[in-house]
Amino acid sequence: MSAHPRLSLNQATIKYADLATALRVTAAAGIASIGLWREPVAEVGLAAAQRLVAASGLRVSSLCRGGFFTATDPDLRRAALAENRRAIAETATLAAAGAAGSAPVLVLVAGGLPDGDRDLPGARERARDAVGALVDDAVAAGVTLAIEPMHPIYAADRGVISTLGQALDVAEQFPAATVGVVVDTFHVWWDPQLAEQLKRAGAGGRIAGYQVCDWITPLPADALLARGMMGDGHIDFAAITAAVSDAGYTGDIEVEIFNQGIWDADPAAVAARTARCFAAHVGA
Amino acid sequence: MSAHPRLSLNQATIKYADLATALRVTAAAGIASIGLWREPVAEVGLAAAQRLVAASGLRVSSLCRGGFFTATDPDLRRAALAENRRAIAETATLAAAGAAGSAPVLVLVAGGLPDGDRDLPGARERARDAVGALVDDAVAAGVTLAIEPMHPIYAADRGVISTLGQALDVAEQFPAATVGVVVDTFHVWWDPQLAEQLKRAGAGGRIAGYQVCDWITPLPADALLARGMMGDGHIDFAAITAAVSDAGYTGDIEVEIFNQGIWDADPAAVAARTARCFAAHVGA
Repeated sequence: MSAHPRLSLNQATIKYADLATALRVTAAAGIASIGLWREPVAEVGLAAAQRLVAASGLRVSSLCRGGFFTATDPDLRRAALAENRRAIAETATLAAAGAAGSAPVLVLVAGGLPDGDRDLPGARERARDAVGALVDDAVAAGVTLAIEPMHPIYAADRGVISTLGQALDVAEQFPAATVGVVVDTFHVWWDPQLAEQLKRAGAGGRIAGYQVCDWITPLPADALLARGMMGDGHIDFAAITAAVSDAGYTGDIEVEIFNQGIWDADPAAVAARTARCFAAHVGA
Repeated sequence: MSAHPRLSLNQATIKYADLATALRVTAAAGIASIGLWREPVAEVGLAAAQRLVAASGLRVSSLCRGGFFTATDPDLRRAALAENRRAIAETATLAAAGAAGSAPVLVLVAGGLPDGDRDLPGARERARDAVGALVDDAVAAGVTLAIEPMHPIYAADRGVISTLGQALDVAEQFPAATVGVVVDTFHVWWDPQLAEQLKRAGAGGRIAGYQVCDWITPLPADALLARGMMGDGHIDFAAITAAVSDAGYTGDIEVEIFNQGIWDADPAAVAARTARCFAAHVGA
């Protein structure tokens, strides 16, 4: 049985599966695309990962993730840029190994405030500058850098780019083929400007990825794991998907869920459940 | 010893103190103003509360809180409006009982999504309509309705008005003397549009209150209690206070902290610590 043709299973949803397992259960669930993470790729090495991806027949919808750009220390900053250059190269390699329709998209998370630092505008400026510093590398590799605005719950410790509008303010300083945004329902569903910013993103050709998962309450004790399967929470996926589609996005739709209960379940069962919930709720 | 002349201790910071105790420890800490809550007022009754407040010599900076406007059920909606009309009357009574400079300000929290309801724009529309339904009552009572935008972490279950800009979009549909906004650092500190929306709020005379507390990480298990004493977290109070002052706000500044550790401490010690941390960090 085939899942929705645009569904992509982001590896974070089956975090404890290694790359080979992730590729296998994704394909077995009839899902045609996968969103990869750098850590499980590094476990097997890039060359082996490339072979595994090619053999799977799956598309690659993105690589997660680059970013973490906000250090003030010059050495840490240089190290972050070097790490992102490696991530750009990996993105190009893995997308080339994927089936036709794969997307050379590197998801970028800005990073939070350095320890003891309360200068939020300064951290945001450093994130912007880092994107700028990577643009030539991305152009050379044919990779799109996709800035992911993160829910304001993470502004202090994970991502200082908090809204779609703010991500577009950065992206629009660079060519659209090279710098775009990722729209993740978990991060943006609450935004009163969502409809208008999706239109803006679409008009500029800036939507480089669309990810879905639900906002559940009460929030789990670990706010990083506060994501739910579609249908388990409060998000109106059909409305947001319609707005993303109206904005012209036709690419893969990743399901990316950080949730301890889902991580603890059998990955094959999670892949199958993801396909069912996607069909029932996402409205693609 | 006197605390900062604009400091007001919001009762929520010493949640387990009854009204008489709250008034006593506030005055004993040299704090000249208090933000009241309806529940401890109701415990003693409005007439007794009025006498206690008058005898305390303290200013009243606001009453928390009205709102919770998002029910779809017509009976629940009527009940919410009736409850808010009582809160408006209480606000007028208590502000009149307070010392000169008291502010007849009722803080409004919009309310979340009804159970099983995913129509966020609809809930936002109902919140706006409810404010409109209360305007005449507020005018008659000489009370300012102060819409408090809530951090997006609470959009599903507590407050569907998520940004200062969105709160102003509602407030500006009504006269400035009757409908304003509350700026709470916890709720707005992450907002990339904060500076511009504070300017807008100030230019329109819409800032009806300013509350401070810190954003701490990691978030406690109960996200409702995720607030910290100023200096314990990531917020640059001096920068936000300067922007609020530049916007023309000269009223009391409330310290409102929901935090189990602070609630469990001796309220007199909390009041004294609040005065010290306010002086050290808030920049007023």
